Amino acid sequence: MDDQQFRKFGHEFIDWVADYFNNIESYPVLARVQPGEIKGALPSAPPESGESMEKIFADFKKTILPGMTHWQHPGWFAYFPANNSPASVLAEVLTAGLAAQCMIWQTSPAAAELEETVMGWLRDMIGLPASWSGVIQDTASTATLCSLLTAREVRTDFASNRSGVREPLTVYASTEAHSSVEKGIKIAGFGSENLRTIPVDETFAMIPDRLEEAIREDERRGRRPCAVVVTVGTTSSGAVDPLRPIGEICRRRGLWLHVDAAYAGTAAVLPEMRWLLDGAHLADSVVFNPHKWMLTNFDCSAYFVRDPGALIRTFEIHPEYLKTGKDAVVKNYRDWGIQLGRRFRALKLWFVIRSYGVEGIRSMVREHLRLARLFASRLEARPDFEILAPVILSLVCFRWNDGRKSGEELNALNKTLLERVNASGKVFLTHTSLNGRFVIRLVVGQRTTTERHVRQAWEIIAAEAGRLEA
Amino acid sequence: MDDQQFRKFGHEFIDWVADYFNNIESYPVLARVQPGEIKGALPSAPPESGESMEKIFADFKKTILPGMTHWQHPGWFAYFPANNSPASVLAEVLTAGLAAQCMIWQTSPAAAELEETVMGWLRDMIGLPASWSGVIQDTASTATLCSLLTAREVRTDFASNRSGVREPLTVYASTEAHSSVEKGIKIAGFGSENLRTIPVDETFAMIPDRLEEAIREDERRGRRPCAVVVTVGTTSSGAVDPLRPIGEICRRRGLWLHVDAAYAGTAAVLPEMRWLLDGAHLADSVVFNPHKWMLTNFDCSAYFVRDPGALIRTFEIHPEYLKTGKDAVVKNYRDWGIQLGRRFRALKLWFVIRSYGVEGIRSMVREHLRLARLFASRLEARPDFEILAPVILSLVCFRWNDGRKSGEELNALNKTLLERVNASGKVFLTHTSLNGRFVIRLVVGQRTTTERHVRQAWEIIAAEAGRLEA
Repeated sequence: MDDQQFRKFGHEFIDWVADYFNNIESYPVLARVQPGEIKGALPSAPPESGESMEKIFADFKKTILPGMTHWQHPGWFAYFPANNSPASVLAEVLTAGLAAQCMIWQTSPAAAELEETVMGWLRDMIGLPASWSGVIQDTASTATLCSLLTAREVRTDFASNRSGVREPLTVYASTEAHSSVEKGIKIAGFGSENLRTIPVDETFAMIPDRLEEAIREDERRGRRPCAVVVTVGTTSSGAVDPLRPIGEICRRRGLWLHVDAAYAGTAAVLPEMRWLLDGAHLADSVVFNPHKWMLTNFDCSAYFVRDPGALIRTFEIHPEYLKTGKDAVVKNYRDWGIQLGRRFRALKLWFVIRSYGVEGIRSMVREHLRLARLFASRLEARPDFEILAPVILSLVCFRWNDGRKSGEELNALNKTLLERVNASGKVFLTHTSLNGRFVIRLVVGQRTTTERHVRQAWEIIAAEAGRLEA
Repeated sequence: MDDQQFRKFGHEFIDWVADYFNNIESYPVLARVQPGEIKGALPSAPPESGESMEKIFADFKKTILPGMTHWQHPGWFAYFPANNSPASVLAEVLTAGLAAQCMIWQTSPAAAELEETVMGWLRDMIGLPASWSGVIQDTASTATLCSLLTAREVRTDFASNRSGVREPLTVYASTEAHSSVEKGIKIAGFGSENLRTIPVDETFAMIPDRLEEAIREDERRGRRPCAVVVTVGTTSSGAVDPLRPIGEICRRRGLWLHVDAAYAGTAAVLPEMRWLLDGAHLADSVVFNPHKWMLTNFDCSAYFVRDPGALIRTFEIHPEYLKTGKDAVVKNYRDWGIQLGRRFRALKLWFVIRSYGVEGIRSMVREHLRLARLFASRLEARPDFEILAPVILSLVCFRWNDGRKSGEELNALNKTLLERVNASGKVFLTHTSLNGRFVIRLVVGQRTTTERHVRQAWEIIAAEAGRLEA
């Protein structure tokens, strides 16, 4: 492809993205294809000769697009959001053009120093101690794994890296913690049997006393308590574990403390929500995802640590072929995580924070919180709906319940309700399970979601519920 | 930023990237900034109010750009390449616009099925068995870690995931294997003491007999041999471990075999280089990086496995909030690796393979191999240079040596030579150490590198060597 072709299609693609942003409501949120349908439309062998970009772009529109689920749709109320923004997309264009691999300082000093700078901005924006350091990871799964590995090494005086894991080290998280905690525990060689799931209270938040009991019980049984994972904003219901009392337990008992605030951390940019991270100064690490609720294209997970020295000592490698004359005086982020290779992810974060300003980000988050409360108020006004968890953030957990059904029958009806609501194509919500109940989740977090979309979601849900009752 | 602004700057950024590709030789390859210089030019606090894209873009050009090391420069002969292409950049624009998070089939069926399709294309392009399955990982570091974890689980009948690592499992790789092998061994809880580094022959390739001896010795000492990592194209010198005889040892002894072909795997698209992966059918997994030498923007690492069931069983998680009605009949790639969240990386690979065709990719690789041999022939014609490893791929390892210096003095002179060559700004080469010798590495792998650039590199090196001698 020559220069003129690149410009032509580049402009065309930018306009396509702009049109996509404008017309996104014309697509069904959730792709309407059957398993195997897209694959069946693709040739099983690659072309021998190059094909024109006209043809590739036409196939993108004809074959790929109908199989996309539209995460940027304003009717996206599923899982957690992964919102982007025009500023972030623009930064991705430059990142893709430069295509620098930012493994060490030398391979792009600006990438390393911009990362250090914007991570300092973010740290201050959510009120973490000024002495902490940040690094961009791809996902919260990876950040949590990095934290568990650092905990393992600190607890064993770095002997596990050298000799392997040789004794039962236990990790504590609530029964509502994200699946990535158990996954990380398996990967790091702790073994899932050594994860203690601590009971939660009626708000689905970890009960600190039960944590302390579990720690004592393990000590009695000759096991070595190693780390606690606190969840600020659980995936199922947005529950907030009480960070400060848990932090005090960890300090008292010398346990590592990681805070998984993947979704909710963004809300701490609001002074009135800063309480979410109250006690974070007692923790060893915190992760939250600007790629979820802060307008930044996936992937961009912000991982903050009290002691970067422990992190680096866990991961550092020094092969001759990566040595430079500057290693003693610069940050080489390859040693701050699992992967050696690194994209230039700081650029989009810089573009987003500058383009919106701290106030712009706060406005969006505040509006999303307001919209979630608005939706909750609609549910509260109806005798045939119930809210099943406190609405602390922008996530509302609810179900239809006219009081005449129960148990599995009620669960099945709500599953049907969710399927019918999603079949509208106007909205996409997902589910979870709380105390054995099938729960519908509605999360407000898309950049373009306005009151109109939340009202529409409620109308669709209410109408489908009416059909259930009929 | 409104629609018009997004289009305006989108077009401007595309043109900037096009100009950058055209003018890239006007930049010094290696950034010429001092540590702290970029950071010092950036404000330590984020802006409260949003700023204009004019201002952000101006700051990008003024502050960030001088701190970039230009990986796409045709004078890039350092490390390994991480080349991109116009087709790949265009795909990244669409990927950033759609911003789908492709963790499971439902969250974008087209992404899952396109990934399965293009990974099938790639598998066939490098001649792996048609029964194997592929998945895109971010980096070879991660893919190798995934392989080591699967090996750990298969060897312990999935008890390590459950109960933790409890006995010394040993892993084997050559003394020239990449640092990610040791890093993965630490992360997965094997312990670096349980990595056996197997001696290499005069070509820096693993000696199979020494591998078998080491395995026997571990068995005698009551340790459990678990996995072997073969390197096809070592980072230091491009050495190729003999895959087939090592594969036969692994089959005979029931050991897991992973092939790290991160850089060299791309060369297997050439029929005449297919021998690189001869014996791969005896392995359990192979990784190579289209983001290195196959025109695809970082990150895009191709990980192939014989038995996806073992991979999935190592990583699968089934929280309620991720269940869909289709999980039994679709591929959910969240269970094929460490991270839950996934970018839509298959799109750029599809654009690249279609835009270039298999023949286009082959032509580029063939030309790079020719240029490396051309460079080697210049060295061979000179009595004051020596080639220090066989030139099998597009990597040439050499040093200046006029026969009058030796040992550390010679090493120091070559270090000076490399620094002076890189100070030209026209080229960037890196170094390694082979048998205690300081070795300069020249790798041809940039899309835009032509014979002119290789000749220029040689002229700069020869001229600076002349100054050393003077």
